[in-house]
Order: sequence, then C-alpha cells, then structure tokens
Amino acid sequence: MSVLIKGGRIITASDDYVGDIYIEDERISLIGQSLDMPADTVIDASGKYVLPGCIDPHTHIEFPFGGTTTCDTWTSATVAAAFGGTTTLVDFCCQVPGHSLFSALEDWHRKMSERKPVIDVGFHMAITDLSDPARMEELKRVVQDEGVTSYKLFMAYKGSVMVDDTTLFKVMQQAHETGALVMVHAENGDVIDVLVRQALAAGHTSTIWHARTRPPITEGEATNRAIQLAHLADAPLYVVHVSCKEAIDPVAEARAKGWKVWAETCPQYLFFDESVLDQPNFEGGKWIYTPPPRPKEHQEHLWQALSTGILSVVSTDHCPFNFNGQKTLGRDDFSKIPNGGPGIENRLHLMHEFGVRQGRFSMNRLVELLATNPAKLFGLYPKKGTIAVGSDADLVVFDPNKQLTISAATHHSLIDYNLYEGYQVTGAPEIVMVRGRTIVQGDELVAGPGAGTFIKRARFGEELTGATGGVAV
Amino acid sequence: MSVLIKGGRIITASDDYVGDIYIEDERISLIGQSLDMPADTVIDASGKYVLPGCIDPHTHIEFPFGGTTTCDTWTSATVAAAFGGTTTLVDFCCQVPGHSLFSALEDWHRKMSERKPVIDVGFHMAITDLSDPARMEELKRVVQDEGVTSYKLFMAYKGSVMVDDTTLFKVMQQAHETGALVMVHAENGDVIDVLVRQALAAGHTSTIWHARTRPPITEGEATNRAIQLAHLADAPLYVVHVSCKEAIDPVAEARAKGWKVWAETCPQYLFFDESVLDQPNFEGGKWIYTPPPRPKEHQEHLWQALSTGILSVVSTDHCPFNFNGQKTLGRDDFSKIPNGGPGIENRLHLMHEFGVRQGRFSMNRLVELLATNPAKLFGLYPKKGTIAVGSDADLVVFDPNKQLTISAATHHSLIDYNLYEGYQVTGAPEIVMVRGRTIVQGDELVAGPGAGTFIKRARFGEELTGATGGVAV
Amino acid sequence: MSVLIKGGRIITASDDYVGDIYIEDERISLIGQSLDMPADTVIDASGKYVLPGCIDPHTHIEFPFGGTTTCDTWTSATVAAAFGGTTTLVDFCCQVPGHSLFSALEDWHRKMSERKPVIDVGFHMAITDLSDPARMEELKRVVQDEGVTSYKLFMAYKGSVMVDDTTLFKVMQQAHETGALVMVHAENGDVIDVLVRQALAAGHTSTIWHARTRPPITEGEATNRAIQLAHLADAPLYVVHVSCKEAIDPVAEARAKGWKVWAETCPQYLFFDESVLDQPNFEGGKWIYTPPPRPKEHQEHLWQALSTGILSVVSTDHCPFNFNGQKTLGRDDFSKIPNGGPGIENRLHLMHEFGVRQGRFSMNRLVELLATNPAKLFGLYPKKGTIAVGSDADLVVFDPNKQLTISAATHHSLIDYNLYEGYQVTGAPEIVMVRGRTIVQGDELVAGPGAGTFIKRARFGEELTGATGGVAV
Amino acid sequence: MSVLIKGGRIITASDDYVGDIYIEDERISLIGQSLDMPADTVIDASGKYVLPGCIDPHTHIEFPFGGTTTCDTWTSATVAAAFGGTTTLVDFCCQVPGHSLFSALEDWHRKMSERKPVIDVGFHMAITDLSDPARMEELKRVVQDEGVTSYKLFMAYKGSVMVDDTTLFKVMQQAHETGALVMVHAENGDVIDVLVRQALAAGHTSTIWHARTRPPITEGEATNRAIQLAHLADAPLYVVHVSCKEAIDPVAEARAKGWKVWAETCPQYLFFDESVLDQPNFEGGKWIYTPPPRPKEHQEHLWQALSTGILSVVSTDHCPFNFNGQKTLGRDDFSKIPNGGPGIENRLHLMHEFGVRQGRFSMNRLVELLATNPAKLFGLYPKKGTIAVGSDADLVVFDPNKQLTISAATHHSLIDYNLYEGYQVTGAPEIVMVRGRTIVQGDELVAGPGAGTFIKRARFGEELTGATGGVAV
Repeated sequence: MSVLIKGGRIITASDDYVGDIYIEDERISLIGQSLDMPADTVIDASGKYVLPGCIDPHTHIEFPFGGTTTCDTWTSATVAAAFGGTTTLVDFCCQVPGHSLFSALEDWHRKMSERKPVIDVGFHMAITDLSDPARMEELKRVVQDEGVTSYKLFMAYKGSVMVDDTTLFKVMQQAHETGALVMVHAENGDVIDVLVRQALAAGHTSTIWHARTRPPITEGEATNRAIQLAHLADAPLYVVHVSCKEAIDPVAEARAKGWKVWAETCPQYLFFDESVLDQPNFEGGKWIYTPPPRPKEHQEHLWQALSTGILSVVSTDHCPFNFNGQKTLGRDDFSKIPNGGPGIENRLHLMHEFGVRQGRFSMNRLVELLATNPAKLFGLYPKKGTIAVGSDADLVVFDPNKQLTISAATHHSLIDYNLYEGYQVTGAPEIVMVRGRTIVQGDELVAGPGAGTFIKRARFGEELTGATGGVAV
Repeated sequence: MSVLIKGGRIITASDDYVGDIYIEDERISLIGQSLDMPADTVIDASGKYVLPGCIDPHTHIEFPFGGTTTCDTWTSATVAAAFGGTTTLVDFCCQVPGHSLFSALEDWHRKMSERKPVIDVGFHMAITDLSDPARMEELKRVVQDEGVTSYKLFMAYKGSVMVDDTTLFKVMQQAHETGALVMVHAENGDVIDVLVRQALAAGHTSTIWHARTRPPITEGEATNRAIQLAHLADAPLYVVHVSCKEAIDPVAEARAKGWKVWAETCPQYLFFDESVLDQPNFEGGKWIYTPPPRPKEHQEHLWQALSTGILSVVSTDHCPFNFNGQKTLGRDDFSKIPNGGPGIENRLHLMHEFGVRQGRFSMNRLVELLATNPAKLFGLYPKKGTIAVGSDADLVVFDPNKQLTISAATHHSLIDYNLYEGYQVTGAPEIVMVRGRTIVQGDELVAGPGAGTFIKRARFGEELTGATGGVAV
Repeated sequence: MSVLIKGGRIITASDDYVGDIYIEDERISLIGQSLDMPADTVIDASGKYVLPGCIDPHTHIEFPFGGTTTCDTWTSATVAAAFGGTTTLVDFCCQVPGHSLFSALEDWHRKMSERKPVIDVGFHMAITDLSDPARMEELKRVVQDEGVTSYKLFMAYKGSVMVDDTTLFKVMQQAHETGALVMVHAENGDVIDVLVRQALAAGHTSTIWHARTRPPITEGEATNRAIQLAHLADAPLYVVHVSCKEAIDPVAEARAKGWKVWAETCPQYLFFDESVLDQPNFEGGKWIYTPPPRPKEHQEHLWQALSTGILSVVSTDHCPFNFNGQKTLGRDDFSKIPNGGPGIENRLHLMHEFGVRQGRFSMNRLVELLATNPAKLFGLYPKKGTIAVGSDADLVVFDPNKQLTISAATHHSLIDYNLYEGYQVTGAPEIVMVRGRTIVQGDELVAGPGAGTFIKRARFGEELTGATGGVAV
Repeated sequence: MSVLIKGGRIITASDDYVGDIYIEDERISLIGQSLDMPADTVIDASGKYVLPGCIDPHTHIEFPFGGTTTCDTWTSATVAAAFGGTTTLVDFCCQVPGHSLFSALEDWHRKMSERKPVIDVGFHMAITDLSDPARMEELKRVVQDEGVTSYKLFMAYKGSVMVDDTTLFKVMQQAHETGALVMVHAENGDVIDVLVRQALAAGHTSTIWHARTRPPITEGEATNRAIQLAHLADAPLYVVHVSCKEAIDPVAEARAKGWKVWAETCPQYLFFDESVLDQPNFEGGKWIYTPPPRPKEHQEHLWQALSTGILSVVSTDHCPFNFNGQKTLGRDDFSKIPNGGPGIENRLHLMHEFGVRQGRFSMNRLVELLATNPAKLFGLYPKKGTIAVGSDADLVVFDPNKQLTISAATHHSLIDYNLYEGYQVTGAPEIVMVRGRTIVQGDELVAGPGAGTFIKRARFGEELTGATGGVAV
C-alpha cells in the first residue's frame, strides 16, 4: 500500500520546508519535490502542515484507581487521541502492591489487546512495592525482554501507591543498571496526608480543599528530592506534570548544571487556576486532578519554561472519570473524588492555538514538545517522532486555518465533560495516519479497531531501529 | 548536473537516519532509501556521515587592522574553510570611521569577487561611526537592498573601531526597525585602555600582558551591558567570541528570561589557557587574539554552556596574521601585535573530536552549533544549514574514522602557523560540496576559483526562501 | 555641662535594654541603671526609646544644579534634619569641571560655615573631571588632609557632571590607594540622553517622560558596571539611591560573593510609584528626582532588600527645589526641571512607621540602617552611629507613641511642598541632641546656629578615634 | 559581690570601644570610663578584649548513643567549655522513642544537677516519636512550663532516632503554635541506610566509607526539604551542623527570600576534609562524626557563608567518645563506630585565629556568631549574649596575644584525643566569668562545681527579661 502526500509544509523539530512524502510498507520511503510516482492514495496537502504524529507519554486507560476505573477504554481513548493528532501513547502499567510486575504487565496487555487500540501503544511500569526481593530482577526483565523501559514512582498517595525514599532510591539505582528512565510523580505525600486529615477533621470537605491541602511547596520539595536522588544514583529522571514555579525552579537548576533531568507539563496547568475548584454545585469536581490547579501566576512561568527549554514535553495525563457517578463519589468529601482529568484529544489544538498562534513558541518547538522529545526520551525515536526517510509514517496533515469549538458534545472520549468546553481554536488535524494507514479523515474515523499495535521501546539514550548511533535529547 | 549520495548516515540538528540524497540543480531534490535513478555522479557514503555544510559566521578576510592586513585572501581562506567542511562564511565588512557604509561594502565586494571564493559568502556590517546622520538611512538600506542583515559593534579597541554606548544603543534601536541582528564584541574598551597604558608605562611589554590587561571582568561587564541595552531597544543580540564564565553568566540569565540573546564561542577558548602567552621566544605572540586566552577553569564552563544550550554557535573568528612579519611587529610591545588568530579549517575536526567523541554533546548538537543555528540566526535558513528537500546541496560527507594530524605544514590557509599543531583527531570531511558541486575530495581541491557566490541574507527571524513561515532559533 | 537621661529603652544596632546614660564633655561617659549622680540636665526617658542620632549620608545643600540652587541653606537644612532625628549629615561637595577639587572644597566650607549648621557635617567629594593630571594628587590630599574620604561619581547627566568609564575606573584605582570609599550615581547617561532627545523630538514634554526616558534597565546596567569595575580596581563601592529590582539584583549577587559593595535606597522609592508623575497641573513636577519613581512592584523588592541585608542604608538624597519658581522652570519641558526632591526631616518618621511598626524590620535594624551603618561606612564610627561609652552624645529620645501628620505647613525645610503631605505616623523624636547639647525639644528648636561642626572622617575601614581596631561593616 | 573590669576593649556584635564594666549582683550595672568605685575584685583588662561569654547551642553531654555514652560528664564538659570562653550551653535532651518527653526531661535534669555544671545550661528537646497523641500536648508544656523552647528532629539515623516527614511536619506545625524554634539534623536517612547496607554487603567496612555512604547530596536534599516544610508550617527553622555547599545553597536561597531560616556550622567542617578518614591504624575513627568530613572545596564555601551572613552561628556539636574503648567498637565496621567528635573547648580559639586573624571576618562578627546570635535565636537574649547594662555578667577577658598549642594533654574534656592536636593559635581567654563569678583564671579553674544553673529560655522572638520589646535576629 502506498501513499503520496503532496505539497505540504513539512515541519520537524528543526526543519520547515515544502515537500512531498511517499509512503510504502508503513514507512516514509521518499521525500522530494514534485514527486509523481503512482500511489494507492494521493493526498493534496498544499496549504497544510505535515507534522509527525504526536506522542502522548502520560495516560491512564482502563485504570483502576480509588475504587473506580477510568472511563475510557483502549478503544475510546485511542480514537480520541487519534482525533487530536496523537499516533502513539505510552500508558502507565501499575504494579499491585505485593504482586509481581509481570502480573500487572499481563493484565495491561490483556486489557489493551481486547479493546484493540487504533494507534500505537507502549507501557511504562509503575513500581509501588519492592518488599519482595524478586522485584529487582523483574525490573531488569521488563526492560530487557518486554520493551518497557521506564519506571514510574509515586511520591504521593500515601497508603496507596506511594513509595518512600528507600524504594525510590533503589529503583533509581536499578535504572542506572538497566538503562531505564525514571519517572516521578513529585509531591510530598506525608505532608499532604497530614494536611488532608486536618482539613477533613476541621470539616473542610469542598473541592477547593483539594488545592489547599496540596500547596505548591509540596510539589517543589518532592521535585527537588527526586532530582537530587536521581543524580546521586546517576539515573536519568523525568518529572511528570510539573504545575508550578516551585517545581520548575529545581528542574531549571539541574538542567543548567547539565544533569540528566527532563520534565513535562500538561495543558490543564497552562489554562486553569485554582479558582475553578471554588465553583458552586460541585462543578469544581471536574478539575480534581493532581497536582491541583494552581494560583494564576504559575501559568506564565510554565509557558516561559516551555519556550526556554526548561520543560521538554507537553503530555496530557489523561485520566478520565465521569462527572456523574465517578467524580460525584466525593461530593461530600474532596478526598474521595477520583483524581484525574481528561484531555487526550485537545493537546495539539491547544498548544497550536495558545503556544504557536499567540507567539509563545514556534511550530518547530511545538513538534519537539509533542512528538520528537517524547519519542527520543521514551525510546521510540527514530521510528516515531519525526518525518524522515525510514521512520514510521505516523503523520498529521494539519489545517492551520480550520476553526474548531471544543466540546464534550463532539469529543471522542467517553467522558461526560470537557475541561475546555467552548474554547475556540484555529488549526486542527485533517488527516491522521498511523504507519501509513489513515485513521482519521476530517471528522470521520476511517480505520477499524486494531490499527494500533504494542511497541517495545528502546532503553534510554538508545534508538529503536539500531541503524545509527543512539539518541540525544 | 545530478548527484546521488547513497547510504550515508544523514544527520541534522534533530534527525539521524540512513538514507540516500539526490541532487539536481544545486539543490536537494529527493531523500529516500535505495534510490536508483541515474545521476551524473554517484557517491557511496555508506559508513559515513552526511552533514549539512558548516557555516562560519565570524571571519576576517583581507581585513586591514592595526596597520597590516590579515594574511588569507578570499581564495585561500575559502579553500581552507572548505577543507574544514565549511560551505558558507559570513565576513565582517567594516565601515571606515567617517565614511559611508556603502564605500566599505563596495570595497568588500570588490576584494571578494576579485579573489573568487570557492564557497558561498555573506557580509555583516561593522559600524564604527554614526556621526554623519546619513548613516542611519544607510543602516536601513544595507538590510533592505544588500542582504547585509546584521550589524556588528565593537565595545573595545578604543581610539580605533570602538563605539560608545550612544552609538551602540542607536544602532540597536535601528536594528529593531530594520530587522537586523546586532552583534557585539563585548569588552570594556575604556578600562582596557587604562590598563594597557599603565602596563606599558610600567615597562610590561611581553605577551602575557595582553591577558593581564583584559581581565575576564571587562568582558563580563560589557556583555551584560550589551544585553541590557539590546533588551531595552528590543533588538535581537548575538554576542561574539564568549571566552569566560563572567560573560557566560549574563547570557545565561538573559536566555532564562526568554530574552532575544544568543552567543558563540570559538575553539581557541576551549583549548588554550593564558599560560600559552607566557612562553619564551615570543611564541605567545601566536595566541594574541581578543578576548585573550583565559585561566584554565573557564574552559569547562564553555563546554558546559555549549551542551546546555547557553551558547548557540561555535565560530572560528579566523583573523590570521603571520607569525613572521606580522605578529612580530609587536615583539617589543604586546599592544602592537595585530590581534587575531587562525582556525578556519579545524573547527569541525576539533568539535567532532573533543565535543562528540569525548561525550560532551551529540552529533545532532554538533550540526546545530556549526550549521543549523548559524543558518537560522543569520538569515540563511532553510537554503543553508540543514539537509532537507529544497535546500542547497551544501553537504559534507564525513568519515568518522579518518585519522588526521593538524599542522601548518598541511593546512590550506596561507598563515605560517597553526594553533593546534600536532593535535590528532579522528574524523574528517571526505567530500565537501557547495550547491551540489564537489569542492573538496579527500585531500584534493577539485573545484576552481569562483565556485562560491555572494548570498543576500534574510532579516532576523525571516527565512530566505519565503516558502514557509519564518525561522525559529 | 552634664546630662543624665534616665530610664529609656536604649537601642543600638545590636542591643535593646533599659538604662540610664550620663553625658559629660559632649560624650557618653557612663551607662548604668538607677544612676543618681548630679547633672546639669536630667531627662526622664521612661517609656521612650533612646537612639543614636541618625546620619544622613546623602544631601545636596545650597547646591547649584541646572541653573538654579537647592532652596535650603545650611541653616534650614540642618534644622530640618535635627527635627527628623538626624545629628550628622554628609553633603556632596562637587568639583566644577575644569577646576580643582580644592576650590570646590573651599567653596563648600565657606558656604557651610557662613550659615552655621546646627548639626555636625561632613563632605563627600564629587569628581567630574580628571583631565588635568593634578587631580590625581588632589584625590590623595582630600583624603589625607581634609577628612573627605569618599569620592562620588555620576554615571548620568551627560554633558554636565557625567564621567566616562575611563574616569570612573581611574578614580576607583585611586580609591584603592587612598582608602576612600567610591560612591556612584548609577544610570547609563548615554542611553538616557538618547531617549530624552528622542522624547523631546517627538513632542513628549510632560513629567511622566522623566520616568519613561530613564527605564529601570538603565539603572540596573550602570549598577552592574560600577560593581564590576570597582571589584576589578579592588575599591570599596557604595551605590546611592537604588530604586529598582534591576539595581538590587547585581548588588545582591556581589554581596553574596563577599565583594566590597554596599548600597542605599531613599524613602521616596519606597512610597511613590511612577503614577505620581502623571498627575495634572504639573503636580508631577514635585516628584522629578533621579532615578525617577518606578512601577509599583519595585517597592516590595526594596523593602525586602532592606530587611534581608542587601541594602545597608536609608538616606534621603535631600535635594530640594521649590515647586514655584524652580520646578516650574520645566513646566513645558520635563528635561528642564531641576532634578531632586526633599525629605531630610521625615526619614526616621517614615522608617519607624512603615518599617518597624508594619513589621518589616526591627528597631535594631532601623538603627543600623539610619545610624550605625552610615557611621561605619563613612568613617564616623565609633564617634557617631551608636550609643556607647566614649561616643559623641548624639542622641534621639524618641517617643514611639507620638502622633504626627507630615506637612509642608509644619516642616522646617524652606521648600514649599512635602512629598508625604498628610501622611500620618506614630512615633517621633522628642529630644534631639548633638554632642550632649539639646538642639530640638518637642516642637522647639532650642539651640542657636553653629551648634554643629565639620567632621573630618576616617578612611574606609578605619575608625575615627583610633582607640580600637578598625571598623567592620 | 562587686567586680570592676577596667580598660578593656569591649566588643559586642556591633560595638567596639574601650571602657570599664562594673558588676553587681551577677549583672552588669555600669559601663563607663575611668570608673573608680570600690569593688570586691578589680580586673585590669587593658590591652585585652572583653567579650560576652560565648554560647554553645549544640552539645551532647552524658548522652547515650549507639550502645555507649558520651564520655564527658556535666562537670567535665562545662569545665572544658569554660576554659574555651563558653559560659552557657544548650544540650540536647532526647526523647526515648515510645516514652514521654517529660521522662527524658527529668532524666536530663537529674544527670545535670548531680554533676553540678560550672556554667549555665539550657535544654533543647529532641523529638523521636509522636505515635502517642499525648506528645502533642507535651510539646506545648515543655515550652510553656519548662523553658525548653526548641525542638530538635533527626532526619537521619534510620531505625533509631530518625523521624519521617509526617512527624517532622507535625512538630513544625506545633512549633508554629507554641513559639518554639525547630532544629533539624538534615540528612536523608533512607538513602544513607541503603548506601551503608550496600557498602557493608560489599565488604567496605573501613572509616572512609562513613563519608562515602553519606554524600553531600544527602545533606543538601534534606536541608532543602526541612526548609520547605518549615516555611509551609510557618515555623522558624535552624539547621544544625551545615557541612557542605549542597546544604549552604538552600539556606542561602531561603534567607534571600526573607524566610525564617538560620543555620550553623561547626569548626570540624572548616578544618578537616574527608582524607582524614582514610588514615591507617583506624586513626580515621576519631573523625567519625555526622555529617562526615567533606571534600576540601567545601571549606571555603563555609567560611564565605560565615562572612556573608548565610550562616548565623558556629557551635561545636561536642559529642565526645573516647578513641580507646568507644570509637574502637567499630574498628571492623564503620557503621558501629559511635558518631560524634569533641571540640567544646576550642571553638573561640579557632574562630579567633582562623576567622579574625586571617581576615575572614571581624571581631564583631566573631561575637555575633559565638554569642549574640545564639542568645537571640535560643531565647537567652538580653540576659546572655551581649555586654550591656542589665545583662548577666557572663564575660570573657580575652588576651589577643596569648600563644596556645591545642592538645589532648592539656585540654579539660575527659576525651582521650583532640582533633586539633598541635594546632597553634594566638589569642585565648584569660578570665571567664559566669554571672560575675570568675570560673577560669589563666590556666586555673577557680570556681567549684555548681557555679552554673539551669536557664529557662524564652520563646523564639521573645526576650528573656520582658523589659523591652522582643528580639530580632
């Protein structure tokens, strides 16, 4: 099957030029100008951008959490992702405390394959419990044998998935050995637990207390701690969902010293401040994600950090719980609201509108933040994350002039609300393809279930194809 | 004329993959795998890197300075550059105080065209005197009409080309209007003048006093001053030849704030410390360039700044004066030694050996520092500075395993010494082509004079071809 | 003549205790509890603070500037100072360009002695012109022979008193030799001159343009430049009237490195933002001082810098020009308004009310900022600046509960307006004495002219009495 | 009983003057010049300094730790302290996990009073276990009723006295309520525990591994964590025994922001680097204290931090274990060596010699670091820590010219070694008095046991006498 995309403005992390792309056998085989070879499909991209398919390295699909399960299936989540220009996602497979990493992995593979994703998929391994010494060996094997090359640790959620510094540090040491990337959810869970108990004891049960019991300093402290320990263990570190200046600062300092530290933020931290939690009728429940929305001044720090290179990725942390029936479990007690928010479909829309069109960064930087950097950091490059000969034909034909109003009424996730309800953006994907196969065309899903596949990822700093010499981030 | 380069590892600022490149009409027309179309020339690049031709934005060719003239002609300099993998250079056209910018420009064009360069060439305009109000209009015209889109100012060399803050600031304001990039040689010329006079009055005439009369703080102060004034004028700024921590620091602070500031260093600051000036037999005269060699600890700060993104470019500041007959003019008085050192041919050799092979940065970063960033900053992108369809076929086929010993005996500059005499490196260009035409093949110059041409450069932030949407650095 | 002050709360830079003070022969001879020796005068200070007399190191009295002269005489200025708790001031004696330092000094001594100040007085020497080599020797002699141990330089006021970096640096080098302290008015005069000319050329003549043509960055740049050059010359530096974050930052950095740098701010920068310049009816003319009032956010940075130790002194920069007849000279052209504002009488009132009572710093720190640090920095300690046996009995009995409304109707300066008109403060001097002699009692001036005398100051780091071992700041 | 000290150079944190001091009823009643009233004792201090008695806020006397007990008794420790110019110490009373704070307090009072100290004494309360809710109430009562106004927490010593962040934060919150100062031993105990176990498992048992298993980053991380949590709890924080740049940096940042954070270092960190641990014959055992000796470059950072005000106190952390019989318990396993080193007698000697005489800071600063700041921070001011009328006559007549060779052969501690063996210093106490009573005269102990007494300390920011208006640090 061959595809010819003609006349688009091809944009990578570094380049920006007009050209034609020819696709054979799922991969880009030719880039040229005025190509005229025969093709099964010819796409006229003139006036459009052609971007690498975006990569979302932070999702929670069919994820059991707090007595309920995120409401998107592997089908619905990947369809929504595809409509947002995302062609690969990496989901968090989560060890059940006391159980083997491999039982979690089997569970994730089973759920995923049953529901036949339409885009490509990888897994991170979230580590919650090292008390059985067998786990250390498993940490090796998931990297070597399973293509699961990143470990996630939670420094918050005390009594649930939180690890102490002993476990955190031992996993970092193991990552140094195995070549995995360490990811941390950085909040001081001990302190937050004290504050939550005190708030509840004082009768503070409304949604705003989610923010008040997780002040920015708890994120800043934990971020610094993770950075220091990772540096000591000589393990590469990736800090997820940075939400505030207090967390940006230690990331910036570490990077200025040349330490192996990277970090992401998510759109919800760029657009919402904590006042959203203070709305009547439990409306704030929709914004109960962690870290919480912050005071407004943090937003400009985050945008600045995206443009100056302190932050390297924008992910979604898509962790959808329906408002009705799920969020409402905590109507009378904010601590019982399942933590997480939706967003898998709108990342590219929002970053193009508010990042590029409002002059905060360039299209090259957009591609870097949403595709190239995640690919390089998570062992997917050069198979994914760029437009180059030999790479997978994961491509987005993006119409920079298309008008779109974001709404739960039209989005493709199963969730019953959209945080960006009513936002108007200019610029949206027109065609989204995975390995040369068109998944989305305009408003239509044109691929059936199972278009996507599991991807074994390379170790940190290695490249997936083995053709060249490693990956630099 | 068509060329097919097969099987090389193609490396850009962001990408790294194996592929074939087809060249027609001076430009890259096709990138693919297993290309088999007919070509006038077929090059087997397997096992080799294919890099964008390097750009050297800082040279002084046939430059009259201190009563003498740099010893390379436009022929010899560009031949030497080509052997070092450089396919475009941007030279400093220098206003004679009291005279029009255009008379300098004519002079530079005349000299350059007479000596028929073998690589492509652009000019910066060095401004030394605004006393005639006509100059302000000329500043506009050189940008609009002549493709000379960067202004250079000297904050040192009092009594010669130094400008005061009034002139500096007015040029910055004009740059804001015209879209030019402002370049500064940042040293406090007033203070240095006091120190030089005091040193000479005290009988200190030997070469080490070149360094002692230009302490790092004089560079750091001026760097900060230029940055602050450029920010006030809202003009983009490029600081040339950063040599020390004192100058790195204000650049780093400005960039962390998202200010429009970029800076370069040169190889001589990465390899030599001030002890080279303290050698017997006037040997130190060879290292009389400005800023001077610094104490050794600055070198690690510079390498670090190259890898963390504080510095954006490595240029050469090639400003060659023969040891015998030129440097020796100041045998009895360091202040009479013509300031400048050679290096046009060895930049890529050195950065590959000591930057990439010693693990300080990646091949992608090498390409960014030597080709892509200079192209984007100086209005040459995407015509130059990358490997993409539509771009000029300025390419280097680089053999990463070739052994080379650097020496004046074999280099191609006319100068009678080489600062890196005896340095051994692994990795060197095998073929260098400019717009599809092979200039250098192995140790042979295969193109005649005139292979290069003058390039009108785009304004800062614009792109040269007009095909897409501007350039992000 | 003996005085006994009983039962006051004695506050120094470090201590705070209740005690009695006995004064003989102008000096403190005894500190005790329940002292009952006979005294010519007995003062009951119970319920009051006893503070060291404040020192104002920054005034301009009978100062010719911009074609007019400041409106306070040595009598009126020192009376006003005394009512504000100031018992010593150090005024700027200003070299006339082209003339000897000594002719300026004679002029200052003559004017001062004719008008018989009521408090003690010292002089700084402002250097404006070094073109005659004789000046270098004079710089030595004013320190050695005249007790004038600080040099002031203006980096602004181009075409008038501004010096270039050559003069600035040479004076710093000389200060290193002579033991003088270097003081700088730090603004980039070249840039400001360009901006003022452009503003006027564009028809911008109203008072707000005073601020718009002197943006904070011009102060920040010059502050950093002065610091770097002073460090290079190894001369101690004191930056006057710091007004903005841009200037605080380089001072903070230098001090963190242990460099010999100190700085002051003045009350007007803590209370007024640039909106005062934008009032109708030329009202803004009253606030035409330099640096100008800044945007409001700078005020909190200044308060913070006072409390954390970045700033060491609060002076007044009292430079009074009447609104009618003097300020109005520039009614149609802001650049013709004489620069300077009043404030000599209200510094202690304001710092007590807004510094201490509002919890920003302690009474100890108040004493340090207004008395002890100026005494130590300017060679007056331990004769002045503290309450200790052997020190001059320059004392303020301060009533912390006295209510006062600041007003031109009641102040003692000759100027026809007060910047703080209507401000209400709690806490004011009740008795002010100079060397044991009461100058002010309540609202009455009780000493006649001539109570004050000229003080020869010690070199930087030396102490005035020679009894102990030098002075640490 | 009255004492008259004549003609000494009286030095406080701020002042420096020659005068006489008259003492009645244990307190300073008069300071003057040429005092000639009758006195039971007259001391000629001419040519000498008179300093406030030093305060050592960090000692471990008769302290059970690691299966043994520190080797100084309350008698020997206070005698040694007195010989070193220390007139008050504050010792760590340590809660036994699972037991009441009050049982520890009774134990400490009993031991202390049995052995009759010769100088004044206060207690901190070390909190190790909050599991019984009764502890929260006890935290209040020790402050309100017992004059124990500081809480100490250990972030290291896992499995022994270490607390987790929950306990740490709850104590900080309680300190906010009770007005206590929080003190932390800041090292990441979890990480150190991992490293120690791994070292031992690998057969690394020698003393150098004490340093290798406690890298500076573990101290820096914990220091930052304590600072962030204390700021969140709005509790004042005091970081003990800062040993390295990694810990200085977060202290400096916090203080620059005006946070309520103070820190101390100890002489052993200024003089010894980690090479002392690498000596043959178990000699390194003498330097097994925690944090460990650091690489040499940290020493200059510590000196700098003392002079620029980042660090506020020099304490001793006197925690003496005999080499023979105690340190040797860990001859075959560094982790079994009791942690702690001696130093109670030599602090003033060393700080005068290497701080003042080598030009790093002034005598005023010396007094501030060793007496005034500890007094103010720990609720002893103005009773202790200065020389002022009404203050306790805790005084040191210090001979700045006395030669001394430090040695275990002559020191007064019971310990069998001295870390500074053979160090030669110039300057030592000649007379040391506590509340007007001479304890030490030259080389003689002239007071019998019991000259000292327990001092109830004021809350943080309050002053001990209640006479004035609180204490500013």
